[in-house]
Amino acid sequence: MYTEPTTFSAEAYFASQPPPPTLQHDIERVREFAKRQVQEGRKVVLVTSGGTTVPLELNVVRFLDNFSAGTRGATSAEYFLKAGYAVIFMHRQFSLQPFSRHYSHSTNPFLDFLDIEPSKDGNTPVISVTPSKRSDLLEVLTMYKDVHNAGTLHTLTFVTVDDYLWLLRAVSQELSVLGRKAMFYLAAAVSDFFLPRQRMSEHKIQSGKGRLSIEMDQVPKILKPLVDEWTKDGYIVSFKLETDDNLLLPKAKAALKRYGHQVVIGNDLHRRKYEVVFVSPKSPSSNTSSSSTTDQSDDQFEEYWLRIPIPDTSGNVSPHQVKEIEEDIVAELLKRHSAWIDQAKTTS
Amino acid sequence: MYTEPTTFSAEAYFASQPPPPTLQHDIERVREFAKRQVQEGRKVVLVTSGGTTVPLELNVVRFLDNFSAGTRGATSAEYFLKAGYAVIFMHRQFSLQPFSRHYSHSTNPFLDFLDIEPSKDGNTPVISVTPSKRSDLLEVLTMYKDVHNAGTLHTLTFVTVDDYLWLLRAVSQELSVLGRKAMFYLAAAVSDFFLPRQRMSEHKIQSGKGRLSIEMDQVPKILKPLVDEWTKDGYIVSFKLETDDNLLLPKAKAALKRYGHQVVIGNDLHRRKYEVVFVSPKSPSSNTSSSSTTDQSDDQFEEYWLRIPIPDTSGNVSPHQVKEIEEDIVAELLKRHSAWIDQAKTTS
Repeated sequence: MYTEPTTFSAEAYFASQPPPPTLQHDIERVREFAKRQVQEGRKVVLVTSGGTTVPLELNVVRFLDNFSAGTRGATSAEYFLKAGYAVIFMHRQFSLQPFSRHYSHSTNPFLDFLDIEPSKDGNTPVISVTPSKRSDLLEVLTMYKDVHNAGTLHTLTFVTVDDYLWLLRAVSQELSVLGRKAMFYLAAAVSDFFLPRQRMSEHKIQSGKGRLSIEMDQVPKILKPLVDEWTKDGYIVSFKLETDDNLLLPKAKAALKRYGHQVVIGNDLHRRKYEVVFVSPKSPSSNTSSSSTTDQSDDQFEEYWLRIPIPDTSGNVSPHQVKEIEEDIVAELLKRHSAWIDQAKTTS
Repeated sequence: MYTEPTTFSAEAYFASQPPPPTLQHDIERVREFAKRQVQEGRKVVLVTSGGTTVPLELNVVRFLDNFSAGTRGATSAEYFLKAGYAVIFMHRQFSLQPFSRHYSHSTNPFLDFLDIEPSKDGNTPVISVTPSKRSDLLEVLTMYKDVHNAGTLHTLTFVTVDDYLWLLRAVSQELSVLGRKAMFYLAAAVSDFFLPRQRMSEHKIQSGKGRLSIEMDQVPKILKPLVDEWTKDGYIVSFKLETDDNLLLPKAKAALKRYGHQVVIGNDLHRRKYEVVFVSPKSPSSNTSSSSTTDQSDDQFEEYWLRIPIPDTSGNVSPHQVKEIEEDIVAELLKRHSAWIDQAKTTS
């Protein structure tokens, strides 16, 4: 008989919630990918991206979701690829993806920049790219094809928070073969709450019976086992999104204290495209205490604010000329990740 | 002071929940569009498509959603356009759209069928369409351009159930100038529940405080005022999606009894791409009672099942060769809509 825990530890969670049916297949592909990157000497980053769903029914019609188009993850993945990293892009189905993100069906639909040229010899008409769009598209397409030829991008898809948690555990375990050369860039907007399968309605919840009451459990804090067990050497970057500015730094620091990982990138919902803050334990050189101390006070953290000018969205600027904050976020992380790898060499 | 009703009538709903900021602008565009179609003698269909969200916070991070990629609506809109209708396509942001739906970024990404041909004369390389993809793309692109040149497609976007309800009311009122020439094809998956703005949390709901409890109110039954007040002559097609087969026909009939509109298209979540049922009041010729009788018993309705063979998804068939059930749904509705228009002529 199933007895529901009062709160779910990661262990209780995985023992009671079923894995996605494609998990074994997905793990094997990741294993091959990781092995090849080890052989070829590349650094690897797992980028998670997009929101997770929490279905309310087994035959799911309704679900709770987290706001995220996947811009942060898809954009960052591109800059990691440009920098020579291999990328495992683990994203919510239908969220933005590297490269194709430039041509969203709603803001920049690709059908709009294709022209039909009448055939000259009576044969089929020819499709061509509108002249003004050619150079931008050529740049994106060239990168896209280079990455595919090099085999440095591996894409995984999730929908529910269950899919996400099972995949994250499996992928992080597979990436441990990379040691410190693995980075975790956890940009997905993961639900804090879930509905245990055992409490789900089988069929669509019927209306017409008054109010709908939903009671959800907390998702286990997955960073703890990620840091302590699944990947002991990986460089871990988590994200904290808030709408109340006063909570951003305290919550980022609380996460570092609790999980003991490397960086929290804090961002405010409304300013996230122009401003983020890196919160991390003070480096050993600037601080006498070890970064693994668990009772850090607030002054044992350093804050690094990263800002870009608010872009001109008047429409007069080509999207490719707009500076993206992810370019600077990734550049900063490349330095930190290198230092993290070097640090292991000097101490070993 | 705001006093919350125990259940929301449509009137109480619109009196207490604020309209979307773009409503006035959207209405004016629809008014111009409707006026042009009247002048040009076209029939007009409003196609609603995709799911609606129910935000849990004013600064929204979390929301309830309804499962829908927007396939039914986007596909049907294309067939209505092919048949010469003008289409107002009112869809959930980022859901599928007519034409571009053939090139989803996940299943058939357009970057995959563009080739880079090295320049012959030392200038910029040329982008061309992969030969095997040319004929399908040419067909879609030709239709897309024809529709844009004819000005027969008008697109509106919603996100929340509030946006949807305000837009539906406004658009249906504007379409009343078309009389019986307006059809309403309500394929959007609209939430049955909502959280009144007055009960929303301002900021992101914090985790770490145990379980999350959400209590939601019923969305007012909007078909009632749509049929009775907003559009007295429009031909109204609503949809009923269930996961429990036993509920499909009873719920479809209950909706017709309650609202007195023309057709409910019932579909089962798992078979919706191959099987639907049209439920409608028996036509006057086959039934002595008037179709406006409100105490209809079950035998006063007729069912018309529409099925297509389950398509071959082995991947050996071009997506354009696969039969889509929406083609038959729209063909059936064209006949019924014509009869509905003719019926007014004979009785007037």
